[in-house]
Amino acid sequence: MIIRKEEQKITVNEQMRGGEGSVQLRQLLAPEQFCGHGRLFNQLELAPGCSIGSHYHNGESETFYILQGTARFDDNGQECILHAGDVAHTPSGHFHSIANAGQEPLVLVAMIVNS
Amino acid sequence: MIIRKEEQKITVNEQMRGGEGSVQLRQLLAPEQFCGHGRLFNQLELAPGCSIGSHYHNGESETFYILQGTARFDDNGQECILHAGDVAHTPSGHFHSIANAGQEPLVLVAMIVNS
Repeated sequence: MIIRKEEQKITVNEQMRGGEGSVQLRQLLAPEQFCGHGRLFNQLELAPGCSIGSHYHNGESETFYILQGTARFDDNGQECILHAGDVAHTPSGHFHSIANAGQEPLVLVAMIVNS
Repeated sequence: MIIRKEEQKITVNEQMRGGEGSVQLRQLLAPEQFCGHGRLFNQLELAPGCSIGSHYHNGESETFYILQGTARFDDNGQECILHAGDVAHTPSGHFHSIANAGQEPLVLVAMIVNS
């Protein structure tokens, strides 16, 4: 099954999880395409200064794969800077937040799988 | 948990699934990080002319997200051309193959989740 870029559902989420500004989410896969064990496979784009606020994942894990830009990432209480190619994995029971800490768009792939 | 680009495991697979040339796989997530319901989250790179041969997925689905380049994709018997931003989803019981059909590297993210 082919899902062309121009057919993918785009959502703009304001103050996502209590963050700043907006996040554009492009849905790569629908929740029902995860064999029942996932719910999200999206490309996210955050303009400079935008962020997703801190939140927990319980009964599921979320993985961010940075494609472009510079992120400030809170990894369950430990802050770090992420660049293109880096991966941030948040297992069940942990929390995270992410912000665009650079001058260009921050682009990443996000995946949520669950048990 | 942060997995830096330079720490990610790189494998080069020759004649992958009976395909041409080689495929470079960069492991973004280890199989044990899928809550027990997945086994692969990799970035793949195929030089011009390289391919992954035709194969089935049973009891799992594989999704390709094209980041760069041009692919010739066999979607369970139907051939098409994929560009950056396109998604190819192969559910359980279907087969696929993919080839770099362009003059630049073909780069994609591959994800396998299972039931």
